[in-house]
Amino acid sequence: MPLLNLIPRAELERVAGVVVDPDARVSTLADMCRVNALVAVKRAGSGHIGSSFSAMDVVAFLLFEELNTARLGWEHPDRDVYFSSKGHDVPGLYAALFALGVIPRERFLRLRRFGGLDGHPDVGVPGIEANSGSLGMGISKGRGIAWAKRHLGRGGRVVVMVGDGELQEGQNYEGLQAAAHEGLSGLTVVVDRNELQSDKRTEEIVSLGELESRFRAFGWHVESCDGHDVPALRSAFAACREQGDHPQVVVARTIKGKGVSFMEHPVALSEGGGTYRWHAGAPDDDAFDRAFAELVERVQERFADLGLTPLELEPVDSVDDRRAGSLVGEPESGAGPQRAEYVVDAFGDELVRLGLEREDLVVLDADLASDCRVRAFELAYPDRFVECGIAEQDMVSTAAGLARHGLLPVANSFASFLAARANEQIYNQASEGSKVVYALHYAGLIPAGPGKSHQSVRDISLLAALPGTTIVQPGSSEETRALLRWAVLEAEGNVAVRLAIGPSPRRLELPALVSPGRGHVLREGSAGVLFAYGPVMLHEALTAAEELHDNGVGLMVVAMPWLNQFDAEWLDDVLGAHEHVFVLEDHSPVGALADALRRQQTGRRIVAFGVEGWPACGTPQEALRHHGLDGHSLADRMSACLGAGARAGR
Amino acid sequence: MPLLNLIPRAELERVAGVVVDPDARVSTLADMCRVNALVAVKRAGSGHIGSSFSAMDVVAFLLFEELNTARLGWEHPDRDVYFSSKGHDVPGLYAALFALGVIPRERFLRLRRFGGLDGHPDVGVPGIEANSGSLGMGISKGRGIAWAKRHLGRGGRVVVMVGDGELQEGQNYEGLQAAAHEGLSGLTVVVDRNELQSDKRTEEIVSLGELESRFRAFGWHVESCDGHDVPALRSAFAACREQGDHPQVVVARTIKGKGVSFMEHPVALSEGGGTYRWHAGAPDDDAFDRAFAELVERVQERFADLGLTPLELEPVDSVDDRRAGSLVGEPESGAGPQRAEYVVDAFGDELVRLGLEREDLVVLDADLASDCRVRAFELAYPDRFVECGIAEQDMVSTAAGLARHGLLPVANSFASFLAARANEQIYNQASEGSKVVYALHYAGLIPAGPGKSHQSVRDISLLAALPGTTIVQPGSSEETRALLRWAVLEAEGNVAVRLAIGPSPRRLELPALVSPGRGHVLREGSAGVLFAYGPVMLHEALTAAEELHDNGVGLMVVAMPWLNQFDAEWLDDVLGAHEHVFVLEDHSPVGALADALRRQQTGRRIVAFGVEGWPACGTPQEALRHHGLDGHSLADRMSACLGAGARAGR
Repeated sequence: MPLLNLIPRAELERVAGVVVDPDARVSTLADMCRVNALVAVKRAGSGHIGSSFSAMDVVAFLLFEELNTARLGWEHPDRDVYFSSKGHDVPGLYAALFALGVIPRERFLRLRRFGGLDGHPDVGVPGIEANSGSLGMGISKGRGIAWAKRHLGRGGRVVVMVGDGELQEGQNYEGLQAAAHEGLSGLTVVVDRNELQSDKRTEEIVSLGELESRFRAFGWHVESCDGHDVPALRSAFAACREQGDHPQVVVARTIKGKGVSFMEHPVALSEGGGTYRWHAGAPDDDAFDRAFAELVERVQERFADLGLTPLELEPVDSVDDRRAGSLVGEPESGAGPQRAEYVVDAFGDELVRLGLEREDLVVLDADLASDCRVRAFELAYPDRFVECGIAEQDMVSTAAGLARHGLLPVANSFASFLAARANEQIYNQASEGSKVVYALHYAGLIPAGPGKSHQSVRDISLLAALPGTTIVQPGSSEETRALLRWAVLEAEGNVAVRLAIGPSPRRLELPALVSPGRGHVLREGSAGVLFAYGPVMLHEALTAAEELHDNGVGLMVVAMPWLNQFDAEWLDDVLGAHEHVFVLEDHSPVGALADALRRQQTGRRIVAFGVEGWPACGTPQEALRHHGLDGHSLADRMSACLGAGARAGR
Repeated sequence: MPLLNLIPRAELERVAGVVVDPDARVSTLADMCRVNALVAVKRAGSGHIGSSFSAMDVVAFLLFEELNTARLGWEHPDRDVYFSSKGHDVPGLYAALFALGVIPRERFLRLRRFGGLDGHPDVGVPGIEANSGSLGMGISKGRGIAWAKRHLGRGGRVVVMVGDGELQEGQNYEGLQAAAHEGLSGLTVVVDRNELQSDKRTEEIVSLGELESRFRAFGWHVESCDGHDVPALRSAFAACREQGDHPQVVVARTIKGKGVSFMEHPVALSEGGGTYRWHAGAPDDDAFDRAFAELVERVQERFADLGLTPLELEPVDSVDDRRAGSLVGEPESGAGPQRAEYVVDAFGDELVRLGLEREDLVVLDADLASDCRVRAFELAYPDRFVECGIAEQDMVSTAAGLARHGLLPVANSFASFLAARANEQIYNQASEGSKVVYALHYAGLIPAGPGKSHQSVRDISLLAALPGTTIVQPGSSEETRALLRWAVLEAEGNVAVRLAIGPSPRRLELPALVSPGRGHVLREGSAGVLFAYGPVMLHEALTAAEELHDNGVGLMVVAMPWLNQFDAEWLDDVLGAHEHVFVLEDHSPVGALADALRRQQTGRRIVAFGVEGWPACGTPQEALRHHGLDGHSLADRMSACLGAGARAGR
């Protein structure tokens, strides 16, 4: 991590106070916010630069000039309300709120840290008006706020930023039609039309067609402009204000990565060989240095043009980036010199292998092909890859259609989106008696940096009552391959495969062949038995067992990949003599493995440790500790249950 | 129930075989199918006549003429695939499949009966290509089927019927954009544009604007025609067949209730005082007789015009309609002379009362205002009623916006749609720390006639892992009022109120004041204790206890409206001496009350009876018996658990 420098608030205030020309003021502040957003993301180890930058001029124009919010304050009933529906552009918004003094310096520097700034917007952070991060809810929410303002006779407009890729999500059209029907003229949507989503062109993933005509067909007044041109934005929003009967949209044509030459679309896309590298994740040191230098140089030029004395930067304390919640970070701890593994790599790799064996295998994606490691399948079997865009419901019902007509679909998305957003579609598909494999990526508490929109700690409960569906989560690469093979080749009904997205904290020796309903004893011990699943929690379970061992207590640890079906005989064997049965959930304690075990073993005392309340945002260790799920806390919690007699049980 | 007469298959075959003019043939067969659909619905005691009739000419044109399916058979890989996304028009489709000999007579006459024809389409029925009934999934599913056909090099086109009201559902637009992006020319959507939904005009609920322009904006080829004019339909579909690069839509302008003068829009709407009465539910005897006579007379006229000998009808065995799954039927059994009660009536009534007390109370509806009994609130406080149309996701996120800005929303829909379709939106709303009351109507197994799309036996599990959400279900009118008052006036976080939609089988004496986490002992007994909730299962629980009592076994029965939070002290008191603890779930045995009790009382043996597997379609008694949840079966099942020692425990 290089030494980081921030633009201090005093410098931002200097520009805000001294520069008379509003256009120059907004543009200069926007570039200054870009600098600070970049620093915050680098410090956090992850975050979304590309769309923070594409949306930055619009955000700066709105917060520094167009809206009354900064003047009235974020509690005032007559304030204008601005929020971003896509949410991942929040580093830019945080930078603007820091500039306005709404977010203090110390908190601004704690992006994606516990008690700092959530990786996606959360109303617990000052200046944040709505929780977002899961896409497509913003227009509806804005409709609700605008309706409330009108009903209560309050002043203020509502401006909702949406991404263009996000407009693939069907809920947007529900919100559009309702707001038009109600003539909610207090509602303005601004589209950050940067033409890229996740890592490819929107036109390539699923075309939006002529965006303006979509909005018009839904009864909205439409303005279009260059989203980096402040006078053009001013005119567009002025025209919107004059609409008395219709909600309005400003389609702001923007450039993803705007402000840093090598992050800008389309240059960045062609340099990335067809994929855009700056959507999520922090730049490496070299890229950071170059981007930072370029941005600061532009700000200095602007200062010179405006007759201001040069910009002064302020150094920032360094942080231990090994603790960062980055998806691409190294594992935090490990068993010696082994290279980190990602179970999701094994998933992607085995999927390609299965594609060769099974011609009926079709892979579906909802614009997360890289994160879900299905890009390799797409490249290997382009005619068996179905891209659905950011539209999980459509993906699932499409899979249902494929499955009814002789194909074997594997549908991929993040667990929090797939299991929740498409829940009724999954029920409907399953009710047809067909088979679909659902790959629930990004399952569990970790990584915790992106915040609660992305942390999936309910997905098991959401699928548990679905007849004929088996839910599994592997703990190692070998087990991932084996479970996927079982799901594709042997399982009779639906299988939901939960997958951790980050690096496995340690390599686990798990069998390369699976036996339905049977787990694997990782450690023997007679004081009690602990069931866990997934690489993250198995590591914590073993860490706890190691600590207990050092204290003279022997804990059996069972890796249990089968989360809702058990081999009764095996289970009886394992549980046999144990008085103390523990379950460590990478999930809420409600609706997951412990509940399933209690149903199967009613009358047996089973103590569950899970994610209580809302999943904490922060580094992995911060989040685990907050929930008492790190190895050390678990050792303490189990010791308390085992009581004084435990030591004898070693 | 009047004596019913059916048009026998021989008569339908006579027309199909003899009439040379294809237009006259299709139109005549359509009217004959209307007759039979009417008879089937009358016999079932419920079903959707209005849109069966509006879609009937299109269905007849497709199945009897346009598509190759009847010729190739419903298993042929190259067959054309037709299904209805809205699904509730299935009585008309069943009539057509009966005419084609795909559905035999006996089964046709068992609409909404166990082992007969599901109330909404299910692939277990011959000729049914897709499960539907929950709206908005059909275009995506059609996309999947068309994609599979193209990929596999199979012949046949895919035609999906959608309702116009249904087009408010956002998923449609996901499917539209994806199919256009893929240039799926094998996919045709036909809109049954009858301009009415549920019980009001689509334009009034939430306007669809210029429907054709919506489809064009999403890249589809558009044809429009009179949906009752066979030559016009023929031209429209012929034009569609010529589109090589685009999916196509036929907007078929139709008349809801077409064929029966007093059921036709707009006459029926004005006669109904602004609401359309023939959307769901069987007509009463008088209306049935008039409708039947009118339809048969038209068919006879057509026969005469075609030079055919008069139509001959065939009498149908009568059925006991007291067993029917009708929403408006009488309770099946009861405690003496009391009038049936509907807890949902108490809900609607109390909501109006609360509206007077609380000016911040706002009611949201997703086009089920009559069924959810919120019409009275709408009439009393039109400025605090938010109609969202068939768009549950939008409704929930709108409620989130309202709640963040000082209002107290009560969001209404059927449990299976609200808890599943809008699940991620509910999570997002709850994560903002605001409060919304979710009214989950139509919860549980009964009525079982509409089939699995409508039976909600997963909703508790879908909300159980949501932090800070209380889930309740009242068993009587008084308790409904009390719980709703508690939810609105006292609860701190979200409350999900499950409500039975049908008549309560018996009146229960439950306290008019509730105490959080405490249930109510309905019957004392020392052999065991049975927890149950909701009017349907409480009745079965009491019936079981009565039978056990007659056998000398005393069973304590506890009405437990709190499904995921308990007063620990009270619970310990109730459970105290009991060795045998039973829970009767109006839900899957997974994820509901028994699981919550086991979490709270880990180590205690608790036996749960719930809806295992897919909920059965049929009359209430058929469905209860199938799942072993009727009083008699329960008494048997508990007796087996209680064993020989039970009698002593009386």
